[in-house]
Amino acid sequence: MYPPPPLPPPPPPPPRTHSRIILILKLLIIVFLFAALVVLVTDTGTVELAYNTGFISIRIHFMDMYTYRYLLGVCVTGMVYTLLQIVFSFYNIRTGNRLSPTFDFYGDKVLSYMLATGAAAGFGATSDMQSAFQGAISNNFFKRGYAASALVFIGFIYAAFLSIFSSYALPPKNV
Amino acid sequence: MYPPPPLPPPPPPPPRTHSRIILILKLLIIVFLFAALVVLVTDTGTVELAYNTGFISIRIHFMDMYTYRYLLGVCVTGMVYTLLQIVFSFYNIRTGNRLSPTFDFYGDKVLSYMLATGAAAGFGATSDMQSAFQGAISNNFFKRGYAASALVFIGFIYAAFLSIFSSYALPPKNV
Repeated sequence: MYPPPPLPPPPPPPPRTHSRIILILKLLIIVFLFAALVVLVTDTGTVELAYNTGFISIRIHFMDMYTYRYLLGVCVTGMVYTLLQIVFSFYNIRTGNRLSPTFDFYGDKVLSYMLATGAAAGFGATSDMQSAFQGAISNNFFKRGYAASALVFIGFIYAAFLSIFSSYALPPKNV
Repeated sequence: MYPPPPLPPPPPPPPRTHSRIILILKLLIIVFLFAALVVLVTDTGTVELAYNTGFISIRIHFMDMYTYRYLLGVCVTGMVYTLLQIVFSFYNIRTGNRLSPTFDFYGDKVLSYMLATGAAAGFGATSDMQSAFQGAISNNFFKRGYAASALVFIGFIYAAFLSIFSSYALPPKNV
C-alpha cells in the first residue's frame, strides 16, 4: 500500500488580502480628500476691477464660488463617510459581525458618484471662470481650484475601484 | 401507492421582464440626452460690455463655454453608446448570444460616471458664471444651461439604475 498522498497546501486566505486592499484604498481616499480640503480652504485671490480712472483690488476667497463650496462639502462628507466605514469595519472584525455587502455596495456607489460630481463641477467652473476673468483674477486662485479638483478626482478613481470590488461581492440576484 | 405529486408551476420568466425594464431605461436615457442636446445647441445669448462711453453687445453661443462643449460631448457619446447597446442586444436576442455581464457592468458604470460628471460640470459652471455675469449676460443663456444639465442629470439617474442592475447580474467572484 502506498502512503496517502500529501495534503494539498492550504489555499491562501483571499478575504484578508482583499480587505487589506480595501482598507488601503479607503485610507488613500481620506488622504487625497484631506489634501484637497487644505488646498481649497487656503485658496484666496484678488480681482482687479476698473473703477473711475483706475483699478481697485477686491480680495476673493474660495467661498465666493458656489462650486468650490460644493467641492468643500464633498471633501468633508467623503472623508467622514470613509472614516466611519473604516471604524465600523474594525469594530466588525472584533465582534465578528460583517456589514451587509448590499450596504457597502450602495455606499461605495454613492461615494464614487459624489466625488465624480465634485471633481467635474470643480474642473468645469474653474475652466470657464478662468477664461472669463483672464487677467482680472489672479491665476493662482484658479490653479488651486484645479489642484483641489484634481485631488478629488484621484479620490474618485480609488472610490470607483472600491465600488467595483463591492459590486463583485454582491450576492447574485435576478433583479 | 400515492400518485406522484403535481409538478410545481413553472417559475415566471424574470429575464424577459428584466430586459424590458433595461430597454425602457436605455430608451429614456437616449430621449433625455437628445433633449439636452437640443436645448444646448440652440443656446445663444448676448454679453453687454462697457465700451468707451456706452455699451456694446456681443453674441455668445454655447460653444464659448468649455463646460457646455464637454456637456455636448457627453450627450453625443452617451447617446451613441446606449444606441449601440440596444442594437447589439436585439442582434444578440436573434442570434441567441449574450453579451458578457462583465462588459455590461463596466459599460454601464462608465456611462453613469460620464453623465454624472457632465451634469455636475454644467451645474457648477452655470451657477458661478451666472453670478459673475449678473446683468451682463442674458439670463436665458444660463437658464438653458441649467435645463441641459438637469436633463443630463435625469439621464444619469436612469444610468445609475442600469448600473445597479448590471452589478447584480455579475457572476460572484472573490476579487
